[in-house]
Amino acid sequence: MSKTEYELIIVGGGPAGMSAGIYGGRGGLKTLILESEAIGGNMSDAPEIDNYPAVENIKGMELAEKMKDHASKYADINEIEPVEDVSLNDSIEVETKEGAYSAEALVISTGTEYRKLGVPGEERLSGNGVSYCATCDGFFYKDKSVIVVGGGNSALADASHLLDLGVDVKVVHRRDELRAEKALQESFFDKGGEVIWNSNVEEIKGEDKVEEVLLKNSADDSEETLEVDGVFIAIGDVPNTNLADKIGVETDERGFVKTDDKQRTNVPRIYAAGDATGEPKQVIVASAEGAKAAMAAYEDLENPYWT
Amino acid sequence: MSKTEYELIIVGGGPAGMSAGIYGGRGGLKTLILESEAIGGNMSDAPEIDNYPAVENIKGMELAEKMKDHASKYADINEIEPVEDVSLNDSIEVETKEGAYSAEALVISTGTEYRKLGVPGEERLSGNGVSYCATCDGFFYKDKSVIVVGGGNSALADASHLLDLGVDVKVVHRRDELRAEKALQESFFDKGGEVIWNSNVEEIKGEDKVEEVLLKNSADDSEETLEVDGVFIAIGDVPNTNLADKIGVETDERGFVKTDDKQRTNVPRIYAAGDATGEPKQVIVASAEGAKAAMAAYEDLENPYWT
Repeated sequence: MSKTEYELIIVGGGPAGMSAGIYGGRGGLKTLILESEAIGGNMSDAPEIDNYPAVENIKGMELAEKMKDHASKYADINEIEPVEDVSLNDSIEVETKEGAYSAEALVISTGTEYRKLGVPGEERLSGNGVSYCATCDGFFYKDKSVIVVGGGNSALADASHLLDLGVDVKVVHRRDELRAEKALQESFFDKGGEVIWNSNVEEIKGEDKVEEVLLKNSADDSEETLEVDGVFIAIGDVPNTNLADKIGVETDERGFVKTDDKQRTNVPRIYAAGDATGEPKQVIVASAEGAKAAMAAYEDLENPYWT
Repeated sequence: MSKTEYELIIVGGGPAGMSAGIYGGRGGLKTLILESEAIGGNMSDAPEIDNYPAVENIKGMELAEKMKDHASKYADINEIEPVEDVSLNDSIEVETKEGAYSAEALVISTGTEYRKLGVPGEERLSGNGVSYCATCDGFFYKDKSVIVVGGGNSALADASHLLDLGVDVKVVHRRDELRAEKALQESFFDKGGEVIWNSNVEEIKGEDKVEEVLLKNSADDSEETLEVDGVFIAIGDVPNTNLADKIGVETDERGFVKTDDKQRTNVPRIYAAGDATGEPKQVIVASAEGAKAAMAAYEDLENPYWT
């Protein structure tokens, strides 16, 4: 199989990857972005993004489209092409089902996937009432009742979005206060949203689809069964670091890729950017890290520090 | 004089400051942005910005306007109000000619100013042919001839912009290769731009306005006098850190404010973001740092680590 040669390959096409593509291409590096699904990463699942500076309000999907159009001026973008293997030789070899590529430098911008609750019924009813994406699935719950599990930005944004769609929503949160930013909390409560405080989901029940959830109050250990049609889970993320692990890139105790302040990893010619490197899971921060990763790659390829 | 109370004051209204305003306000902090001139910082001087992800091509001034509109939804913005004094007591006291303010936390996003060449004639003819801003002054040089001094992104962007305006442009660069990103170099050369390599400006001459420049070739020490109508100087920046110095915030050997990876300085409740903290002088990076500074301020005010 012949290899297509690039100078920079970026694995993962969320905001970090697309920004790296823009900066890599503008730096004169022949650049490829490989994305296992459609471009955009978790950003595409955000019902609304209000805090990407200069863009007052936009659907996550639309912001992804704009970034894709922008990046495609400077980089090749292959969607729905998961990486199957990477090996480090004189050059960096990347294999997918569709082809083989080589590069001089690689950016890991593989993002995160949704954290699971890990309770009985969750996996069995996933796709049948259990969802991790209000943007994707919310529409099916108009005039029905759901819970959103979590207390951070994603949970509150999802809950507000569901209220807008005419869904009856209760947020179930394990603590007695929310972590979400105040603007999101206010918007949620202004719309008449309710929170079930100090409560954990113990089990999700139903024959072929979600019918009820068992909640346990952490303050007094009381249990409650709630009839619901859907359970939206928004309790955070775990990094996608298979690729990093495979090529010896160091991760921290939670599994996030470790980088220096220029986005270099411990392995020469390998950079990381975006949610795979940890908090705060903001589009603006991921984009900046992508830009910095590509700038560091450019700098290092001009002036290799490892030879 | 009565004090207006805020929770977060941001000094400097470039991209870092405006992004901090968006994130501060959305976090529920009562937020004020103080800017000594018009909002936008050095970004406003950029003829074109092609690398702010999702915004393919925009004038610096327009991007500043968009960010201002966005930030004004979440923060008070006072333009043309330079800070005269800051003191740290129980709260942080900020004075300007117009008023007195207090805050619980402060973000330093004071940016940089243009580095001077430091040659005879530069200061005397500043505003009479010597300029640091092609966007501001380029228009006056249509059909005239100028040099742009420098070899980085700013110099090449300025030179391309001047060529577009019908100015006869030569770039004077002290080395034998340019530092600017390849896309900017290509654009410049495609438009017929020329570079005078290995050359330093020794003197800028002219009675009441620029008439000629004395160049010295660093390779063979030869000198050359060039008749020009204008000299655009784009050789980098020095940080504006009067404010930081005044309140004991640490800077590095080049004068840039030192921060940790959350944008905290060595002084509790004082954060820094953007070009005042150093390279790479990119809008996307400054914006991310502003967002992170405001998030750190929010986190710390909820949970003060210094008490």
